[in-house]
Amino acid sequence: MNDHTKILLDEDEMPTHWYNIVPDLPAPPPPALHPGTHQPIGPDDLAPLFPMELIMQEVSQESYIEIPEEVRNIYRSWRPSPLYRARRLEQALGTPARIYYKYEGVSPAGSHKPNTAVPQAYYNAKQGVKKLTTETGAGQWGSALAFACALFDMECEVWQVRASYDAKPYRRSLMEVWGATVHPSPSPLTASGRAILEADPDSTGSLGIAISEAVEMAVADPDAKYALGSVLNHVLMHQTIIGEEALLQMKKAGETPDVLVGCTGGGSNFGGLSFPFIREKMAGNMSPEIRAVEPAACPSLTKGIYAYDFGDTAGMAPLVKMHTLGHDFVPDPIHAGGLRYHGMAPLVSHLYELGLMTATAIHQTECFAAAIQFARTEGILPAPEPTHAIAECIREANACKESGEEKVILMALCGHGHFDLASYDAYLSGELEDYDYPEEKVLAAQERIPVIA
Amino acid sequence: MNDHTKILLDEDEMPTHWYNIVPDLPAPPPPALHPGTHQPIGPDDLAPLFPMELIMQEVSQESYIEIPEEVRNIYRSWRPSPLYRARRLEQALGTPARIYYKYEGVSPAGSHKPNTAVPQAYYNAKQGVKKLTTETGAGQWGSALAFACALFDMECEVWQVRASYDAKPYRRSLMEVWGATVHPSPSPLTASGRAILEADPDSTGSLGIAISEAVEMAVADPDAKYALGSVLNHVLMHQTIIGEEALLQMKKAGETPDVLVGCTGGGSNFGGLSFPFIREKMAGNMSPEIRAVEPAACPSLTKGIYAYDFGDTAGMAPLVKMHTLGHDFVPDPIHAGGLRYHGMAPLVSHLYELGLMTATAIHQTECFAAAIQFARTEGILPAPEPTHAIAECIREANACKESGEEKVILMALCGHGHFDLASYDAYLSGELEDYDYPEEKVLAAQERIPVIA
Repeated sequence: MNDHTKILLDEDEMPTHWYNIVPDLPAPPPPALHPGTHQPIGPDDLAPLFPMELIMQEVSQESYIEIPEEVRNIYRSWRPSPLYRARRLEQALGTPARIYYKYEGVSPAGSHKPNTAVPQAYYNAKQGVKKLTTETGAGQWGSALAFACALFDMECEVWQVRASYDAKPYRRSLMEVWGATVHPSPSPLTASGRAILEADPDSTGSLGIAISEAVEMAVADPDAKYALGSVLNHVLMHQTIIGEEALLQMKKAGETPDVLVGCTGGGSNFGGLSFPFIREKMAGNMSPEIRAVEPAACPSLTKGIYAYDFGDTAGMAPLVKMHTLGHDFVPDPIHAGGLRYHGMAPLVSHLYELGLMTATAIHQTECFAAAIQFARTEGILPAPEPTHAIAECIREANACKESGEEKVILMALCGHGHFDLASYDAYLSGELEDYDYPEEKVLAAQERIPVIA
Repeated sequence: MNDHTKILLDEDEMPTHWYNIVPDLPAPPPPALHPGTHQPIGPDDLAPLFPMELIMQEVSQESYIEIPEEVRNIYRSWRPSPLYRARRLEQALGTPARIYYKYEGVSPAGSHKPNTAVPQAYYNAKQGVKKLTTETGAGQWGSALAFACALFDMECEVWQVRASYDAKPYRRSLMEVWGATVHPSPSPLTASGRAILEADPDSTGSLGIAISEAVEMAVADPDAKYALGSVLNHVLMHQTIIGEEALLQMKKAGETPDVLVGCTGGGSNFGGLSFPFIREKMAGNMSPEIRAVEPAACPSLTKGIYAYDFGDTAGMAPLVKMHTLGHDFVPDPIHAGGLRYHGMAPLVSHLYELGLMTATAIHQTECFAAAIQFARTEGILPAPEPTHAIAECIREANACKESGEEKVILMALCGHGHFDLASYDAYLSGELEDYDYPEEKVLAAQERIPVIA
């Protein structure tokens, strides 16, 4: 076993390909459907939104897609990202488990999101697109796309969920430093935004609404396209560089994971770390349990319905089969950052249905308590999203203490919390309350989901 | 020449010793004097403030002091820190210069400060000290000490300059996450604070005042000691791990610097990077120009007097010979973060007098413009302090463009600006004004500096 605190890779060891899990699955994922006709969509249907190379990746049956050299050159600014052994946390817990975490907070935007923002900007720039529009909830995705657009001299226009826009002014500032324009959503700039504001002038917004606004603006502007930070196949594929690196690093550490833990919002952080490990598991090379962790207040995997639903609130985005709380879901104001999307990535949902992974939901106060313990031992201040993975990791390590098992736990630490200290403040002053998403709301949402024959 | 974007070192290559420049200097630095008697102080005079091992380091004549294994184990969480080649910035400038920067923002607290916070907490804990008191201006030092105290299970009590306490609530939150207690300074908790508040109830504070408060509280509590984040010899020595690593990394890159640039507040970031290079320069192994950059609004090196002055406002700290704007200096509200101390480290002041380095002062709007260009090319959002180094680096790179010289520039990027976005906001909205520290204030301050025979 390697006795290092960090297991690093040299730039020359950085993976050269992203991994596409689709062709390796025992059953193909259900196709996306046109929101109007309910017929399977083809590349042409997506062309107003995405450049052709990304659309081809979205439906690709190739197992590996080469990362363009221009993208790899930018990745090198922070990749390969470090894999840490959490020695001080292990010691504080008194556990025989060995805990490793793959840390994506070293990117300029502070999360895993630039792994896909950079190639998305690259392929768009290559096709001559001048502007990208997008939505952002907690702000991680908007920051990442603003950063990527700055590198390719593209305009970037971001609709930030109103609640987040008001609570986190510095996320907006960060996007502006990188040259982006930021609007609170719902905004009067779009038909979808105006419709929401007419019904509720004080709407604090949702990711689904912000997506509708960004999509609407991209479709209306021939020089613009739209970029999504999670959920889609190509986005999850771009993130697999995390897992490919982690495989090499665990090998360097002389370890094989028994449990892999990652938080899930849209699913891109979780898919990014886990898909290459699931490939190894399907090939019989290892047998880790793959576990997703989500907020109890937004439990799309553990309580959502597996059904065709819209990706956005206005119903302009394609219908995809996923675990969903309903496209008109408006999250309660919990502090889980980005983990408040109504649905789960179709690919993660499909893997869950196939039994290739498990899922659990945790309350926010347990997550913040875990984050404080993590910060006081490992030093790093986690973003609210990965506090869910940390909480589950600590549960697992404590179970090992009970049982005496020396399990190897691998955790996705997808970003730092430098822009999320308001939520730590709320936790430390005892203001946070736990909240379970009510069963009756799930049932009511089911009524509003379109019935697909 | 190495074609990497980052030049990394393995944990096994991390330097094992700090470098003490004092014995290598052509003349010894003037001794510190007792604030009451004006006689040279001995170790016993410092014992109420610092643990004996740090006092011995402060006056050491050994060239190298071994870094304790416990400290090295913690350093490994973020060290060796990366050295970057600023390829995208070079390209944007169209300069033939090759720009490298040593990035300390990868530490948990986001700056170089943990390099000394960790050993300071370690030596105090070893001597049985239960609590450390300190001051913080921009918040970088307070955060670093809070982090270090969490690792050694010590209490940490921080006096944060009022202006910063009010403007940067999230810096306070960060310290609290790591378990520290934070007071705004001036505070009613100390005699020094009360004296200031009586004269001016709305005082926004200064580093000098906050130091007085933290020192007063440490002296009054037998279980507590005081920790300083810059200025002192042992603090600068702890930071030399930056320069020792950078020497190895420049060698790996196949480069020898022609110009070394670092920002100076108290002097620890600048000394940390430059002292090992000055050693090599004195030994005739290379001949870089060593250049300090300070804010035009707080120009202690370029406009201050070289004289014995107090390290704090109340006159409780020892008298040290340094470049000073006067111990009762209250900075104008510029956004230079930590670069607002009235004095300069005695060791840096001494080197400046010896002609081993040069200094320049730059206005804040040029610094922020440089920072924006840096963020949009290199990705990293710099703290306000190193924007001064970036501005000077860009000046130098532009001069190379004019002259055609292929200079190698090495820059200290001492931290990120994730907690400083309010100042970027102010810059982007055109609210920042430039400000030169007025000559008459320097002269008036000279009157109030104690006359030492």
